[in-house]
Amino acid sequence: GKMSPARKVLQQDESGGLEFSAPPGRLLYVVNRLGMNCPWTQSIKPLEMLEWLGSEVEEVRKELGQISVYGALCSGGRNIWGEETGDVGRMKSELTAELGDILFDSLMLEMICRREFGLGKFDAWEAASAKVERRTPYMKEWGDGSIAETPQDATKLWEAAKMEEKRQIKDDAKRVQSQPLRKGRDVAHVKATQCFWNMSFSLRSIFASSVLGFAIGAAVSCRIRLRHE
Amino acid sequence: GKMSPARKVLQQDESGGLEFSAPPGRLLYVVNRLGMNCPWTQSIKPLEMLEWLGSEVEEVRKELGQISVYGALCSGGRNIWGEETGDVGRMKSELTAELGDILFDSLMLEMICRREFGLGKFDAWEAASAKVERRTPYMKEWGDGSIAETPQDATKLWEAAKMEEKRQIKDDAKRVQSQPLRKGRDVAHVKATQCFWNMSFSLRSIFASSVLGFAIGAAVSCRIRLRHE
Repeated sequence: GKMSPARKVLQQDESGGLEFSAPPGRLLYVVNRLGMNCPWTQSIKPLEMLEWLGSEVEEVRKELGQISVYGALCSGGRNIWGEETGDVGRMKSELTAELGDILFDSLMLEMICRREFGLGKFDAWEAASAKVERRTPYMKEWGDGSIAETPQDATKLWEAAKMEEKRQIKDDAKRVQSQPLRKGRDVAHVKATQCFWNMSFSLRSIFASSVLGFAIGAAVSCRIRLRHE
Repeated sequence: GKMSPARKVLQQDESGGLEFSAPPGRLLYVVNRLGMNCPWTQSIKPLEMLEWLGSEVEEVRKELGQISVYGALCSGGRNIWGEETGDVGRMKSELTAELGDILFDSLMLEMICRREFGLGKFDAWEAASAKVERRTPYMKEWGDGSIAETPQDATKLWEAAKMEEKRQIKDDAKRVQSQPLRKGRDVAHVKATQCFWNMSFSLRSIFASSVLGFAIGAAVSCRIRLRHE
């Protein structure tokens, strides 16, 4: 279509490095601008947006159910002359609209969570690509030469990569704990810090409030004593 | 990061007009390639993919619940010195990963439905942008000069645009039915077609099978008669 003036002045990073003339880039841009300038979007919390996405999943479920009933009756939604019938056209455009809602709601959820919790701009996108590429080593485009001929082969390699990720996380945790330390005060400091952070969150809260209470108590009693002297 | 050789030979339309160096473009590319070359992805039906997305929505719900409990106890997940604590960092990266899964599953669902039902490549993306832009006329970037100061204003304009869409769909249907016709056979043909397509799907099936049965019956009896003569 024709470009509106607004499209011309965009900065590239608003669309995630996409061209704005391409539909995915346009939708990313729309979502980011809603986040900046739409009062409704600004009032919405992550859980509310998640509810919208959840209800959209139900809509798609209904739509797929209708299509499958129809498809079973009507061999792929074509009549005996191989033409698409009116119902199929209508169902396809309804499904397309619902899938569009899913894409929009997912992008909105990511944007709202990013704003609410200060996540990095492309962190979720990067995490997704990295994880999927790691777990599909049989893909010639980014894999390591592994081969998967069947869905079962693919599942085995996915699960193996998942196990390997877990093992690495454990190893990393161990290496941090066993790293070489300078002697004396350093060791004591690290031990005390580790001890503190190994406590559960509630124990840490209790511990921190006790220390704070003790400090305030000491300061107050010290002041009272000074006044009386 | 460094570009792998695979990234250099990509065709632009594989990432929806995105640059592959940008994370959203990369994820679109990954999803499209899985659709082309991954045996697991090729075995998955739309409803199965929808289940994956649904379970991911639940994962994000859990994660948001944890963060909100923690946030209430710990004023935004920072300690009394304003530093982010270890738990917040962990929760943020877990949430980021879950949001990445939502993005991935949504793109996969769109791709699998597109393949299964022969939808147009960017139809869902275009439908989403067009709908959202129509229903947010108060956005200065693409709107008509309407103003929304509050979330309530925005909701009113959204609902008004939705009503207008429904009215237009009805009008279009009326216009098609009342369009000028050539006389004689054309009118008869259109009336018969309309009559046929206005029937419910099951009535149409019954009607079509009767016609087919009648034709076969007539043909067979004609053949028998010819033989006996």
